[in-house]
Amino acid sequence: MGRRYDTISFLSDYGTNDEFVGVVKSVIRDLAPHATVIDLTHGIAPFDVRAGSLALARSISYVAAGVIVAVVDPGVGTSRRAIAVEVADGEGVLVGPDNGVLAPAVAMAGGAGRAVSLTNVEYQLVAPGATFDGRDVFAPAAAHLCNGVDLLELGDPVDADVLFPGMVPLPQIDDSTVIAQALWTDRFGNVQLNVGPDDIPPGFGDMVEIRMSAPADASGGTTRVATRTTSFADVGAGAVGLVVDANGMLAIVMNQRSAADELGVDDGDQVVISPLDEDAARTGEALPVSVDLTTR
Amino acid sequence: MGRRYDTISFLSDYGTNDEFVGVVKSVIRDLAPHATVIDLTHGIAPFDVRAGSLALARSISYVAAGVIVAVVDPGVGTSRRAIAVEVADGEGVLVGPDNGVLAPAVAMAGGAGRAVSLTNVEYQLVAPGATFDGRDVFAPAAAHLCNGVDLLELGDPVDADVLFPGMVPLPQIDDSTVIAQALWTDRFGNVQLNVGPDDIPPGFGDMVEIRMSAPADASGGTTRVATRTTSFADVGAGAVGLVVDANGMLAIVMNQRSAADELGVDDGDQVVISPLDEDAARTGEALPVSVDLTTR
Amino acid sequence: MGRRYDTISFLSDYGTNDEFVGVVKSVIRDLAPHATVIDLTHGIAPFDVRAGSLALARSISYVAAGVIVAVVDPGVGTSRRAIAVEVADGEGVLVGPDNGVLAPAVAMAGGAGRAVSLTNVEYQLVAPGATFDGRDVFAPAAAHLCNGVDLLELGDPVDADVLFPGMVPLPQIDDSTVIAQALWTDRFGNVQLNVGPDDIPPGFGDMVEIRMSAPADASGGTTRVATRTTSFADVGAGAVGLVVDANGMLAIVMNQRSAADELGVDDGDQVVISPLDEDAARTGEALPVSVDLTTR
Repeated sequence: MGRRYDTISFLSDYGTNDEFVGVVKSVIRDLAPHATVIDLTHGIAPFDVRAGSLALARSISYVAAGVIVAVVDPGVGTSRRAIAVEVADGEGVLVGPDNGVLAPAVAMAGGAGRAVSLTNVEYQLVAPGATFDGRDVFAPAAAHLCNGVDLLELGDPVDADVLFPGMVPLPQIDDSTVIAQALWTDRFGNVQLNVGPDDIPPGFGDMVEIRMSAPADASGGTTRVATRTTSFADVGAGAVGLVVDANGMLAIVMNQRSAADELGVDDGDQVVISPLDEDAARTGEALPVSVDLTTR
Repeated sequence: MGRRYDTISFLSDYGTNDEFVGVVKSVIRDLAPHATVIDLTHGIAPFDVRAGSLALARSISYVAAGVIVAVVDPGVGTSRRAIAVEVADGEGVLVGPDNGVLAPAVAMAGGAGRAVSLTNVEYQLVAPGATFDGRDVFAPAAAHLCNGVDLLELGDPVDADVLFPGMVPLPQIDDSTVIAQALWTDRFGNVQLNVGPDDIPPGFGDMVEIRMSAPADASGGTTRVATRTTSFADVGAGAVGLVVDANGMLAIVMNQRSAADELGVDDGDQVVISPLDEDAARTGEALPVSVDLTTR
Repeated sequence: MGRRYDTISFLSDYGTNDEFVGVVKSVIRDLAPHATVIDLTHGIAPFDVRAGSLALARSISYVAAGVIVAVVDPGVGTSRRAIAVEVADGEGVLVGPDNGVLAPAVAMAGGAGRAVSLTNVEYQLVAPGATFDGRDVFAPAAAHLCNGVDLLELGDPVDADVLFPGMVPLPQIDDSTVIAQALWTDRFGNVQLNVGPDDIPPGFGDMVEIRMSAPADASGGTTRVATRTTSFADVGAGAVGLVVDANGMLAIVMNQRSAADELGVDDGDQVVISPLDEDAARTGEALPVSVDLTTR
């Protein structure tokens, strides 16, 4: 017998308007009644493996010790692997499809320990179809792990080096420009970037220029001045702020308004950060900027 | 005292933007603090008894032993009965309005055992209005059942034969045609039909013609070729598949796209399945089909 | 050590499409694994302190003894206080920002007992940014309270008199007219008013006239006849009812239709209730009313 767990943290793109999440929890309740399930979110956009992997990575340092199930799985029913990966000397086990959804969280948790492909059908449900591995494969695996079944009982060992990698875009940084990317827009319209405050050269000052453009947008996109700040409420009405968000990343924000909607910026857009024109910065005047929302 | 339970599975059309679900759980927590509530879904469309009954029927074979509360209840406050129905020799008790929402699940669980009308006000909350039986009648009944109160304490016995029946449409099947109905569209746009793989005559082959039409649509609807497959990912880009879904039913699907949106098919639509024209099937050519989305 | 609690009721405007709620629960699970979290709702509109305060007030008499966390917090990161307030001799503790979101619930629970400003950083998480006090301040406070940490350990005492007041609009009532306000529209389109059945003078009878107008609407709004009833289903098809709702307030309703959508009434609108013209009432004829939905 392996270590026992009593918490399962659960993330998916199942939504909550269907019974999928409830059925997964029912299976867990049936097999491991002592386990508590914590829903991280089920609102990942359908099939959006990248968004799911980022949400899991943002959560991983807060989840309770135990099993983490993450299911964003467009390849369900194909030969893509279903896996379970230990992290932090077995304090946590991540369970899900081997398509990259687990990878950034595994990396943030210190990298993979033991890993298996979930091939042992004795620890799975017999199912009429092959479309719901959350219910038939991942939930039973999580429940059995909670009951103390050792990871290696669940299937064949897999070398951590061959796990599907996560894809997190890296920024390009030099003295005069930071080329970042919009990673995630939250409910409030705050747009998290893939750069933190230390990625911005100190010389840029408290006000910077940001230029946002969609990947296929040849028009140059939208340019605005953004003020670096520590709270949403410190951003002036209608103004744009760059705040250090709850994950320690920079986010484009507005005060009680959706920056994403107002500025027309989407996940995946390029965001170029540069210092304000020196003269403008020195005089404290706002830079005359061309705001072009019509191109979106 | 009767049998005790420690799980309450809960389905409703309450949504989660109001506090209804939270208040129901608060009442349960207050009366039966040892009970764990599993949300099946609260995203049933308002007043849609049929959709609620189908979601419950899809879930019933997975819910943990215990009490099941299902509330889709346009007749709340009228003389419609509130009931509790035992199934599987008392391993489960279904609680809800007697309007058909429970009936298909009761049937799938092997039929009704003892049943009562929830008439004993001693096991209900005193309420200012008569609009929230989930809080005032169903939650207390579920909690008291968990505490070991016998079913017959909750109200007057009811003959299972007089319970409101469920309405599940039956397909019409002959050698050349299967006339099915769209039962349910899930978050991913997969459209579950009221036929399983064994309902399709073997001679139909791996590719079939499906004709989808709304009940009031005189135009003949939309016709497509569908490939029978075991996973979403095996369906070609832009093509239509017929997959055996997680409930063992056939579903119209596309790969990482919403079949419901692309084909304009809604719950309740008729779906006629027939073999491909023999010549077309033999040559492997796609059948020339008329796709008419404008009629919807 | 103070009293221990084992239930945390949680309301916010976080939504559930992001991982915010899951991370808050993860923090609680980590610090106080014995505590059960009951979600009241996380569907409060972003930044809508008033709507959050009303939902909490509607729930408060049903929540289980324990800690209540309510986070609608546009001022997060500023100098607005974070507070914890005891009610009912310590049977409950409300935790959240001091911006009015707690105030109506505190009043309904009998008023504030001991209160503190959550200034003791030893009971908070060290965070990279100051934008997520739900995770960093409120969740730890709730968990530590569950563990028996005394309220006064969490920060500096605050006089209950200086807490931010709630803002609940009062109706204007005289013999011939009741000037009410639309407080809340639920998922089903029922519109709760800030008056109860006893606020309507008895002479008004079973059918009344209601005139609904938006604050800035000079056209006079929409006028309809409404029948006082005890259930949704007793309202005739297409007719408007005034029902005593689950909170004991009057609500404008229709039968299986959204009154809010059909009548074009929004939260915050003025609703003037008056007796029907006597002649019309005597003959039982419907009052000829001008329905003007175009002004909205």
